[in-house]
Amino acid sequence: MSLILSVNAGSSSLKVSLFRCSPNDSSEPILLLSSSTSSISTPPAKFSFTPAAVDVRPVKDEVESIHNHASAFKHFLDRLKGEASIERTEIKHVCHRIVHGGDYTDPVVIANESLYHIEKLADLAPLHNGSALSVIKTSIDALPHARSIAFFDTAFHKALPRQVSTYAINQQVARDRGLKKYGFHGLSYSFILRSVACHLEKDPRSLNMIAMHIGSGASICAIRSGESIDTSMGLTPLSGLPGATRAGDVDASLIFHYTSRSPAHMSHDPSLAQEVHITEAEDILNTKSGWKALTGTTDFGEITKNADISSPPSASSNSCTVAFHLLLDRILHYVGAYYLALRGDVDALVFAGGVGEKSEQLRSAIGEAVGCLGFAAVDEGRNRKVSTGDEVVADVGREGGGKRLLVCKTDEQFEMTRECVSLAHRGSWE
Amino acid sequence: MSLILSVNAGSSSLKVSLFRCSPNDSSEPILLLSSSTSSISTPPAKFSFTPAAVDVRPVKDEVESIHNHASAFKHFLDRLKGEASIERTEIKHVCHRIVHGGDYTDPVVIANESLYHIEKLADLAPLHNGSALSVIKTSIDALPHARSIAFFDTAFHKALPRQVSTYAINQQVARDRGLKKYGFHGLSYSFILRSVACHLEKDPRSLNMIAMHIGSGASICAIRSGESIDTSMGLTPLSGLPGATRAGDVDASLIFHYTSRSPAHMSHDPSLAQEVHITEAEDILNTKSGWKALTGTTDFGEITKNADISSPPSASSNSCTVAFHLLLDRILHYVGAYYLALRGDVDALVFAGGVGEKSEQLRSAIGEAVGCLGFAAVDEGRNRKVSTGDEVVADVGREGGGKRLLVCKTDEQFEMTRECVSLAHRGSWE
Repeated sequence: MSLILSVNAGSSSLKVSLFRCSPNDSSEPILLLSSSTSSISTPPAKFSFTPAAVDVRPVKDEVESIHNHASAFKHFLDRLKGEASIERTEIKHVCHRIVHGGDYTDPVVIANESLYHIEKLADLAPLHNGSALSVIKTSIDALPHARSIAFFDTAFHKALPRQVSTYAINQQVARDRGLKKYGFHGLSYSFILRSVACHLEKDPRSLNMIAMHIGSGASICAIRSGESIDTSMGLTPLSGLPGATRAGDVDASLIFHYTSRSPAHMSHDPSLAQEVHITEAEDILNTKSGWKALTGTTDFGEITKNADISSPPSASSNSCTVAFHLLLDRILHYVGAYYLALRGDVDALVFAGGVGEKSEQLRSAIGEAVGCLGFAAVDEGRNRKVSTGDEVVADVGREGGGKRLLVCKTDEQFEMTRECVSLAHRGSWE
Repeated sequence: MSLILSVNAGSSSLKVSLFRCSPNDSSEPILLLSSSTSSISTPPAKFSFTPAAVDVRPVKDEVESIHNHASAFKHFLDRLKGEASIERTEIKHVCHRIVHGGDYTDPVVIANESLYHIEKLADLAPLHNGSALSVIKTSIDALPHARSIAFFDTAFHKALPRQVSTYAINQQVARDRGLKKYGFHGLSYSFILRSVACHLEKDPRSLNMIAMHIGSGASICAIRSGESIDTSMGLTPLSGLPGATRAGDVDASLIFHYTSRSPAHMSHDPSLAQEVHITEAEDILNTKSGWKALTGTTDFGEITKNADISSPPSASSNSCTVAFHLLLDRILHYVGAYYLALRGDVDALVFAGGVGEKSEQLRSAIGEAVGCLGFAAVDEGRNRKVSTGDEVVADVGREGGGKRLLVCKTDEQFEMTRECVSLAHRGSWE
């Protein structure tokens, strides 16, 4: 193998990384360039193209011709030739991140049959899988000589204990329709697990930790002996922690009250009966809620700047103070729950994801609260330095005793590529 | 004041207790008799009438004429005269438990205006308030000389911190429609708080505890300095712990997948669009889920008998093993979360409610898990004796160090009566 393209399609973004891999050994992939397209659903799309070499200037522009994920991917391929003189035929593998993998527990080469199954999964989670699916189809057409492989965000959670993954509902319906906790952000947790194990010089299979991926999508995971034993997202990425535009945990009947045609409170008067469709419910709870609904911005840095971090909100506090403390409260809820799920046997609490990696204020507030569980206190000097440092894993706890507080710069595209190389060397796809 | 009737209308049951109170001092009310009607929605209803005096035989029979809560209450009043020779006119106060109190933070005398408001609340939560409302109307007609007072299960949670009670949704909609975490089982928590404070010889206002009311409805509450700072139920009693027929926490999009007309997985194909109405959703998630959906029985004792308690379920385990460990997992989730919410400063973990008071196996399993949080180990001798003892609060932890594990025999009717007497003595209703 030589070049591997790793593709990560979000709801309105497309991130692509290109790696070079040595064909003869299993050394780590080397990043050649990365590209990001954002605002795909609110044109004009913003495109960037960043070669890894330090002496090459990144390209940034707005592209009128990008109007969906397929055209964004095509645009990237065109620029690959123009900006970096790389021929499409040099690309031997394309890795695609798929959010909802249903019952897939391992990556799968995309052929006719698997493509059909993956299309059925898009029915299960169109909001989450739809963009990846359109990129996969474009990729098969545009790169006919490359092998396309699907990686699933659910796969990391394949060993969730039965009592954890089961919902207390009719089990016949649950089996027929696949209604259980799947969990997401698995590629990120897989990257975090390996990286933290390396940092702590432990075998990943003996590592216990609570890892959180806090970005515009946010989740948290309890890992025992290298396996996920619980996580905050469920059947879909909706449940658990709130995100930039996602509500997180709500009472399951809330959506009916939210959409009721009755002028004030809910009415059960049949003449006012409002029927709610999944598309409307998903739209409200996944894209019109979260920090954005509380404060007007998806930028958690801005929220933090305007929040009174030192004390919880009163009736007169501003919306940023409410949003900051609400996220803090929900994260601590799961940290406490997962600490007990691991029976206190926890090597580290790990912060990752855009907010987890950038918000020293959030880490500081969480660190202060978890002291009673035996974690090291936050070293504010270390905590501040994290965003400027270039280590993959940084310890922000004070020297000396206490369970570790770590920050991990997670990288889903790298994780897919590394797994791809590893599977190729094991001859999985020959 | 002389006689106080305390009425607790469940979805298919009616419990009534009659107390005598001294008019001149504020000593505790004395129970004269209690009555219970069950299977109201699946006739024939089962009626019992139990005088508190030990030498009087309880009456138990099936009553064909009871077909709703109103007729059940009328039947009770008739038997009051027949069995105990008590005239209706001797009853001076009638206390009614109302599940959803909206923004009521205190008990309220039921007059024209408050009745109108309480009726509006039944729109908010018909499944939960409907039966109480019909009993209130019957009671006003049948006992015109008595003062009727409404007590709200939400009132105990009135001081929930703003970041806890707020959902991460559009706040204009939230304010207009009253969409926030209310919390329930407040009369029970109020009883537990007072009783545990008395047992531990502490001022309730300095008591920190995690209390769980586990019955056919189940919830858990973090109490700091005598106030609820978080609880597992939310906008309605649906969220949080699973109950006998209630799902508890599920991904908010689950109901749409559950009711989809698509033969297997969810479909977002508009031609298969299934619109879901609140009544159908409430019916499935509140009355067709929980332990009953998992095992076929609402009797947790039977589930425990058939479960393998010693090890978590495998793929081949029976449904009772799944149900037992599922409830255990969900309870521990909240215990861990609330331990951290209280920053580890917890005086006691308290078991209450039908299952909490009766299931020594559940207490034993929880006790074993929470050892890592500094709780005393379960004393199996004490744990076994609880159900036969007659103390209101019993300690089931081993002597010596460790935070306490307590069992409290909670009594919502007593709590309403006690509050009624206390308010009357303070002249609240003169």
